[in-house]
Amino acid sequence: MESAGATLAAAQSRPVCVIGLGLIGGSLLRAAADAGRRAWGASASTTTTEKAGADGYDVTATVDEALARAATEDALVVLAVPLTALDDVLAVVAREAPRCRLTDVTSVKEPVREAVERQAPGTRFVGGHPMTGTEFSGWDAGSLQLFHEKVWVVATEDDADLEVWVDVAALALACGAVVVPAASDEHDLAVARISHLPHLFAAVLASVGADGGELALALAAGSFTDGTRVAATRPELTAAMCVGNRAALLSSLDDALGRLGAARGSLASTGGLLATLTAGHDGRTALDDARRARREVRIDLEGTPAEFLEAMRELGRTGGRVIGWTAEALDAADEALGI
Amino acid sequence: MESAGATLAAAQSRPVCVIGLGLIGGSLLRAAADAGRRAWGASASTTTTEKAGADGYDVTATVDEALARAATEDALVVLAVPLTALDDVLAVVAREAPRCRLTDVTSVKEPVREAVERQAPGTRFVGGHPMTGTEFSGWDAGSLQLFHEKVWVVATEDDADLEVWVDVAALALACGAVVVPAASDEHDLAVARISHLPHLFAAVLASVGADGGELALALAAGSFTDGTRVAATRPELTAAMCVGNRAALLSSLDDALGRLGAARGSLASTGGLLATLTAGHDGRTALDDARRARREVRIDLEGTPAEFLEAMRELGRTGGRVIGWTAEALDAADEALGI
Repeated sequence: MESAGATLAAAQSRPVCVIGLGLIGGSLLRAAADAGRRAWGASASTTTTEKAGADGYDVTATVDEALARAATEDALVVLAVPLTALDDVLAVVAREAPRCRLTDVTSVKEPVREAVERQAPGTRFVGGHPMTGTEFSGWDAGSLQLFHEKVWVVATEDDADLEVWVDVAALALACGAVVVPAASDEHDLAVARISHLPHLFAAVLASVGADGGELALALAAGSFTDGTRVAATRPELTAAMCVGNRAALLSSLDDALGRLGAARGSLASTGGLLATLTAGHDGRTALDDARRARREVRIDLEGTPAEFLEAMRELGRTGGRVIGWTAEALDAADEALGI
Repeated sequence: MESAGATLAAAQSRPVCVIGLGLIGGSLLRAAADAGRRAWGASASTTTTEKAGADGYDVTATVDEALARAATEDALVVLAVPLTALDDVLAVVAREAPRCRLTDVTSVKEPVREAVERQAPGTRFVGGHPMTGTEFSGWDAGSLQLFHEKVWVVATEDDADLEVWVDVAALALACGAVVVPAASDEHDLAVARISHLPHLFAAVLASVGADGGELALALAAGSFTDGTRVAATRPELTAAMCVGNRAALLSSLDDALGRLGAARGSLASTGGLLATLTAGHDGRTALDDARRARREVRIDLEGTPAEFLEAMRELGRTGGRVIGWTAEALDAADEALGI
């Protein structure tokens, strides 16, 4: 990588400032430090701050202090706080590091983008969503390996700051993840379909099943066990995730209700369910096919930043993921940036 | 078991005649023979008949012949044909073995009960439903182990023939299954909730997800993978299963649609999903609790056949299963039968 693009070289040694040291933020601080980055973090909780410090990580006393240092060192700031705490933290960002390189790890992207535009419009924001987690939370639940081979969505808008886009993607790759580029609104619609709606369906199935009493539960086998698994998640967490993506979830829920209504009508009148079930079979086959069809392609990039970003977004739209980059690709990006 | 009840002793050596030698029927012929029963079978397919014969099993040339032999030997006849073929086979039963001991292995119980009353009203019918299977079908897919530790529902109506009830339960236990007693209508409602509705939900989820395109499929993780697993089943098989249980499925689908509609209204107005998700969490917890709460109880039986059957049904309703019986319990049943 001797002739690696200047953008990539800078991104690969960019300091990292993590705000919030729960499961995701705590794992990120560990993984960034392990990847050789200068990395520090801050938490609103003194207990967490003490634990992370005792584990040998660089933790500042306050969020303000961490962000002031990020401004000085031109670090990439990662907001790893719950969606509900975002506005408060963004107010501090606007005060202490108003022009910083900024990303987040929240499960919804449009609302975060809007909050940043509202609260900290001077920052260079590129959203992110590492699709990983466990049923546990807090610093103690974190691990170096949390991002290993997981998908990390990097928000890829037309007007994204390409330098920061490369910063975020480089951090994701440094943590062992693969990058899926996606526009924020396309991300939100996609996760509504493949994560938030499945959580809601699981909850409804579990209720309907349990209302069948002990007999129904005794007869429950694979279809019910698998279909209700995620209903075991803490309802508060699922609710926060779903409500944060309300508009997109409503749209995919309406799609699902339309299909269920059609199936009901058909079952009641002619007894036919084959159209519904065949469409479902095709959908599941598409998933299995997509997972089998892993091949590595090399994309040569040239042109303007907007063209680079559009090429990345198209890669994500067609099921692609970035697993690394060649020096030449980043040289092309540098050229586009005029570096 | 020296003093075992006469009913049980007779049931435990009852010959078995299996009509239909697909996955379930073929496995049953193997398991019954392995348990030391005199067991024979018949299939409408000559290929199957030849295969089963070549594997060393006792297979008659025609279904008529198998049934005539069942009449002569007072065997328990097991109908292991698809729901759609049932009427035709019942016509042969009515002709060749009009008063035989009869059971089935179909996934729905009320419609079968009605078909038997219509087509072969003189038979001594007690329905059954071994809740097992694989994604494969046919004689070659069968195995001795298919019923091992699986639930085998035995239809337990007020007016059931107690002797045949014991025959069916004894066969299930001999095949390694555990018996869950349930009234036919209660069985159908329960499986609609915990099997047929989950299959329909999986199909709709898979369609909605796949309509999100390659990006959505690339982001799909555990909730979508698990929630759509059974959508991979052949649509014709799922359709036959669901349509056979149409009335019960419509009722549980309406229940689910009501809950989804309420969730939609709440999400659109106040953004609240907590009630839906908490009910789902409680339902899933009930499933996990029911599975953990295994304890062995001994039920002493006495009184009339109807009281025996009501006690069995109540056992099933409260999540219980029969794993065996003591000589004393069956002596009590014998007494009730006046044997």
